[in-house]
Amino acid sequence: MTTPWHYRYALRTEGMGSSVIRELLKFTEEPDVISFAGGLPAPEVFPVDRFREATDRVLREHGPQALQYGATEGYLPLRRLIVDLMARYGIYAQEDNVLVTSGSQQALDLIGKVLLNSGDKVLTERPTYLGALQAWRSYQARYVTVPIDQDGLRTDLLEEALRAGPKFMYILPNFQNPGGVTLSLERRLELVRMADHYGTPIIEDDPYGRLRYSGDHLPPLVVMDCDYLESRASDGHGYFTGNVIYTSTFSKTLAPGLRLGWIVAPVDVIRRCVQAKQGMDLHTSSFVQMVAYEVARDGFLEQHVRHIRQVYAQRRDVMLDSMARYFPDEVTWTRPEGGLFLWAWLPEAIDTVALLPEAVESQRVAFVPGNAFYPDGTGRNTMRLNFSNAKPEMIEEGIRRLGLVLKRKLAQEEPVVQLVPPVAA
Amino acid sequence: MTTPWHYRYALRTEGMGSSVIRELLKFTEEPDVISFAGGLPAPEVFPVDRFREATDRVLREHGPQALQYGATEGYLPLRRLIVDLMARYGIYAQEDNVLVTSGSQQALDLIGKVLLNSGDKVLTERPTYLGALQAWRSYQARYVTVPIDQDGLRTDLLEEALRAGPKFMYILPNFQNPGGVTLSLERRLELVRMADHYGTPIIEDDPYGRLRYSGDHLPPLVVMDCDYLESRASDGHGYFTGNVIYTSTFSKTLAPGLRLGWIVAPVDVIRRCVQAKQGMDLHTSSFVQMVAYEVARDGFLEQHVRHIRQVYAQRRDVMLDSMARYFPDEVTWTRPEGGLFLWAWLPEAIDTVALLPEAVESQRVAFVPGNAFYPDGTGRNTMRLNFSNAKPEMIEEGIRRLGLVLKRKLAQEEPVVQLVPPVAA
Repeated sequence: MTTPWHYRYALRTEGMGSSVIRELLKFTEEPDVISFAGGLPAPEVFPVDRFREATDRVLREHGPQALQYGATEGYLPLRRLIVDLMARYGIYAQEDNVLVTSGSQQALDLIGKVLLNSGDKVLTERPTYLGALQAWRSYQARYVTVPIDQDGLRTDLLEEALRAGPKFMYILPNFQNPGGVTLSLERRLELVRMADHYGTPIIEDDPYGRLRYSGDHLPPLVVMDCDYLESRASDGHGYFTGNVIYTSTFSKTLAPGLRLGWIVAPVDVIRRCVQAKQGMDLHTSSFVQMVAYEVARDGFLEQHVRHIRQVYAQRRDVMLDSMARYFPDEVTWTRPEGGLFLWAWLPEAIDTVALLPEAVESQRVAFVPGNAFYPDGTGRNTMRLNFSNAKPEMIEEGIRRLGLVLKRKLAQEEPVVQLVPPVAA
Repeated sequence: MTTPWHYRYALRTEGMGSSVIRELLKFTEEPDVISFAGGLPAPEVFPVDRFREATDRVLREHGPQALQYGATEGYLPLRRLIVDLMARYGIYAQEDNVLVTSGSQQALDLIGKVLLNSGDKVLTERPTYLGALQAWRSYQARYVTVPIDQDGLRTDLLEEALRAGPKFMYILPNFQNPGGVTLSLERRLELVRMADHYGTPIIEDDPYGRLRYSGDHLPPLVVMDCDYLESRASDGHGYFTGNVIYTSTFSKTLAPGLRLGWIVAPVDVIRRCVQAKQGMDLHTSSFVQMVAYEVARDGFLEQHVRHIRQVYAQRRDVMLDSMARYFPDEVTWTRPEGGLFLWAWLPEAIDTVALLPEAVESQRVAFVPGNAFYPDGTGRNTMRLNFSNAKPEMIEEGIRRLGLVLKRKLAQEEPVVQLVPPVAA
């Protein structure tokens, strides 16, 4: 027998995976570890009873349709519901501007498939969402990055990056993953100006926009782009001849286990995405789409989002208060006005990749080392902390433990493996 | 305002779509058209009540888990159930050999993403499944094709095609879509021999394997490959150091609206596919996977497949009998032993692309023009007919009408638009 083909073939996953991170994070899943590493919503906010009623109604009233093949574009009542959601946001899309996707991760993959050729450049924030980097690396994209600060993307550094000729810009304007920062109004305007000047479209990824706990709502880029272009009145297509593709998800407002997201874009872009999606998964589960529609309808989604905001706002506050109390003075962090994450900068000497196993072993607490979110692998003195998943008392205890780890590290002490008193879940 | 970016950009969907076919098929969806064009299961066989019980149990007992993010590999009990299904087939996989996908369409996209570089060749049957052609065109694959006859792939013509150096072979051995033919035992053996000799892996796509209505079960390629390689005993990995990646789906046995399929492959191939899938949709819906597991478990799937076989066997027989009765002598067709489709060859003079609008307008009956299934666009005198979706009396009436269209065409009569008496649904 010859060498198996799969040992001979160069399987194309270089750069697609984050296997180091995956391996590291595996041991954060042990039950006694307090993990700020994931990006999981709090399971106790899932509206399970509403889901039970909704699935029962869908199967009773539309069983065969829910179990049959459906249109690639998505279930029409759900697309209409998304159009209504968008209108509350000032985005006046039509059904033809909306494509339902299998989570917003698929929206990113689709955008890569339709827009990217091998070697194309993509402009991202630095740091940025790991899943976007993964999705577009599979199309052999290269990254041009612009750093963020507390007001989001440093637009004063944007022009130089745009001169490199990126195919598109990828921006998370609200409570950015991983940074937790929000792009200021002035910078939003500067960004849409530059997009138009350089003819470079923007992918506006907005998974967390509705989860704002403090501060004022800021208009989405897609709306500001329209206002800037004054295109709305002139062509009858609403906002969607502009420079922005908008994407969002039900993962943070209803449930990530559904895998339901959407794209809002000009009609011809949606049409191309529909063709590409046919080859990817034919369509997103009819059953899931119909259930999500039944759950979300009649104002339930709005009401539920208000509840989630209360729960997560408290957790954010507990994390920020605990960090002020337990973290060493040398550490700085962002103060997110919404979303699920905050970001911490440590002294340059600390390598968070090396710190993670120590933190898990000695104090049973976990985070994501920040370098995973840097296309160039730098940022090794940063970390991302999630505040949506753990309960408040666990957040405080976890931050206390992490503070201990950091203080010890800064004092150049060797980590000591010690028993930690168990904390009630 | 400058020209919108999406008019300037060359959006990458050339070859991905089948927009001509899509446009053609749109008008087959009118309610008074008897359509043999789709590939839809019969909605009346969906086990809706079992789904209601299953979803209720999943949400009552595991609500938060069903709505939360899950592992990219898939829900472990479902992977175990798939391992058991595979074992009934003689495929002794382990859980680590199984990846749950969002329909088997995603399995094809994944395989393309992991294996194909721009310009790589893929060997397919001619005709072959349209969705595979779409999936791999998006990776700029080129196609090398080998014709089928009543015994499946013409293995006597295989060697020449293999000399062109395809990256892999794509084979539907059972009740092929679109041909309806089954690869004979002798040819299966020849195929696995050649795969080994040329070191070219086989993608075995088997969506219909369990839907056999007559004739004897034939072993999957993955099993014959193992027997040929005698690799099973030697490495402890079961069959999965061999040359075959096997893929199948719950779409034809439970419900396509779930979008649930799977890949069985060597462990290292699965690992790469998992990395690639992370960038594509993170994972397949936890909710759908848990519901499918609850529906399929405790032998229900086996029992349900027996029921489907009875229903579809009758429909196939009605279609074959009606064709013998109503079709002109110049037309020949396949006699499938299972699956959902049969295939007809018409005299060279007839162009089924031109015939479709005539058939829909004059007789309210529809089919898929066969050229869509030819990578090179030939096959314009062929058509695919689906026998799973319409009820028996509709099948007979539809074939009668299609026979009229064909006879008229062969007599060079102009099509006459006439009223057709309505048939009870």
